[in-house]
Amino acid sequence: MKRIAILGSTGSIGRSALAVVDAHADRLSVVGLAAGENAELLAEQIARYRPRTVAMASGGAIDRLRRIGSVDAALAASGRDGLVAVATAPDVDVVLCASSGTDGLEAVLAAIEHGKTVALANKEVLVMAGGMVTEAARRRGVTILPVDSEHNAIHQCLHGRKPSEVRRLILTASGGPFRGRKASELLNVSAEEALRHPTWRMGRKITIDSATLMNKGLEVIEAHWLFGVRADQIDVVIHPQSVVHSMVELTDGSTIAQLGVTDMRLPIQYAFSYPDRWNGPIPPLDLVRAGRLDFDVPDTVAFPCLRLAYRALEADRSLPVVLNAANEIAVARFLEGRVSFPSIAEIIERTMDAHVPAEMASLAAVRAVDQWAREYSQETARRVQLKA
Amino acid sequence: MKRIAILGSTGSIGRSALAVVDAHADRLSVVGLAAGENAELLAEQIARYRPRTVAMASGGAIDRLRRIGSVDAALAASGRDGLVAVATAPDVDVVLCASSGTDGLEAVLAAIEHGKTVALANKEVLVMAGGMVTEAARRRGVTILPVDSEHNAIHQCLHGRKPSEVRRLILTASGGPFRGRKASELLNVSAEEALRHPTWRMGRKITIDSATLMNKGLEVIEAHWLFGVRADQIDVVIHPQSVVHSMVELTDGSTIAQLGVTDMRLPIQYAFSYPDRWNGPIPPLDLVRAGRLDFDVPDTVAFPCLRLAYRALEADRSLPVVLNAANEIAVARFLEGRVSFPSIAEIIERTMDAHVPAEMASLAAVRAVDQWAREYSQETARRVQLKA
Repeated sequence: MKRIAILGSTGSIGRSALAVVDAHADRLSVVGLAAGENAELLAEQIARYRPRTVAMASGGAIDRLRRIGSVDAALAASGRDGLVAVATAPDVDVVLCASSGTDGLEAVLAAIEHGKTVALANKEVLVMAGGMVTEAARRRGVTILPVDSEHNAIHQCLHGRKPSEVRRLILTASGGPFRGRKASELLNVSAEEALRHPTWRMGRKITIDSATLMNKGLEVIEAHWLFGVRADQIDVVIHPQSVVHSMVELTDGSTIAQLGVTDMRLPIQYAFSYPDRWNGPIPPLDLVRAGRLDFDVPDTVAFPCLRLAYRALEADRSLPVVLNAANEIAVARFLEGRVSFPSIAEIIERTMDAHVPAEMASLAAVRAVDQWAREYSQETARRVQLKA
Repeated sequence: MKRIAILGSTGSIGRSALAVVDAHADRLSVVGLAAGENAELLAEQIARYRPRTVAMASGGAIDRLRRIGSVDAALAASGRDGLVAVATAPDVDVVLCASSGTDGLEAVLAAIEHGKTVALANKEVLVMAGGMVTEAARRRGVTILPVDSEHNAIHQCLHGRKPSEVRRLILTASGGPFRGRKASELLNVSAEEALRHPTWRMGRKITIDSATLMNKGLEVIEAHWLFGVRADQIDVVIHPQSVVHSMVELTDGSTIAQLGVTDMRLPIQYAFSYPDRWNGPIPPLDLVRAGRLDFDVPDTVAFPCLRLAYRALEADRSLPVVLNAANEIAVARFLEGRVSFPSIAEIIERTMDAHVPAEMASLAAVRAVDQWAREYSQETARRVQLKA
């Protein structure tokens, strides 16, 4: 029996993870749940899975949770401390980090220090502190299993192969709802349009990141840390059908790909079952029904966020933290209808330009750069907004 | 330095294998060469690679070889004994069996008994005596490395995975030059049309097998023996671009695929370098240039040979031997312009219907059934021809 803690249990990934637990109740048990503000759904999950440790983002959320029903789990503190408590409880074997944004960072590092296997569905953790996280995992002999479908695909393609056999990673990108549009055609797109992802159902922030291609940019940075390859060994190819989840080109010119339906239960189950592989409720891929697979180069003129992510990765040090923080602010402003779609990249680039790169030797240093970038990009967003 | 013997060195695969040797002269040396009747080319190969052991199909061919130039290699006997001598010479590490038809069978079995690694490019060996060959390899702890691009792809996809993780093998088929045609449209196609393969350059017999889909049928039988899976675990999907070389569906619904350019040097180098993987002269796949990949179900009404192969595999025992022998005869008659394209399947099916399946416990038993099937199908071909 593997004992699972889920950070972000009420979100899209968290709910898929609980569906995987339901399908494998004989092999998986939920011992910890952490959610943001959705006390109603967390209360239902607590009633069903009876976790020993529970956390929510804020004291107010925990108060609502108490009011809804009898919470018999030992309630941990709220906020980042709550995430850490759920991730490090002694009975946890695997921590699924599916909390959004940067809040999961301390919890992931703490889970690694406590020797837990980490299933990582959160991009920001590696974008902000990839060096720290992967170094800690190496030191503690902890496995980090990527749950992002692209990195999960690459993990599967690399299985059993030597690092010296790998020439290049190829991340596939659906291209989002605006694939094929020119830069000039993106000026007036609404948040509603940007939220209509063609192949994946996901949360709002990540869906906008897919529309800007920043999601792929963050994945490039993530892949660098997860698989120890340089920026120039990571390529992105547009693949609208999202059937090929990603690929690895080997030194002899051969390419290994992982394909599957677009269902997050697949990579989540992979991470929960690893190093085994289980039967599951996920339908196999029907390639004949899929019918046709297309591949194209990404347009970094219309979608400059991808270029910005490469720039941040190549500069290394603190620039990825700036990229990520500025992106979170810019996307939030776009979702609020306060800045245009092209302004997202503009806000990020201006913030990156204004930043003086620094070494990231501690979490405090990361948080400081993160904080600076948030403030600077908020100010930049205000200026962009006034101008419009 | 790996020492290579090549059975079928003047054929398409053999020449590609020598190109691989040329590209890795620091790692590979040619110690044995066997060819059919092309004494001119073999003489050139001998002058260049200086093998210690040489063989040709017939005494007449060896005479021609002697007349062409000074052959300083210890000439082995001709025919099947010649192949065995080249395959079992003490200095051989890896035997590439790329001789066409059934002649390589004894040589492969002998190579295995002598503990040589076998790189197998010949389908007929496993179709005729898959049980004997794989059992001998297991007993002697010998590795059989498939060089057929499809099985090579599956070998790469399975790398490092447990047999219990595998649900299904999916062989891709280009569909050949007549893909999409109805049965009625195939009555009058010529050998010349059938020889125009859309994606691969290969020998004449295998090119016709691609046009009838018998090639894929033989590969299904081969896959059964190489990977220890049942007939109902092997599917065929039409994929005109031949970019995805084959796939493996795993128990959780995930699919692993190997992709590459259509260049036989790729699987040959894989087999020669295994378990390592080398850089090589083969260009990597450019998926964006490939542009589009299609997948469709095979039409077993217009192309009944695929269905016949499944029937033979499911009946097991001697029926695959009959299938293979009757196919060789029928294809030869079609290439001679004596029977129609649809008659190929008809001749095979009639021969299969007339056969009483028997256990295949010895090579002699295999050869006896093979002989019977050749005679019966020759007779059937004559009758089909007269009727037309």
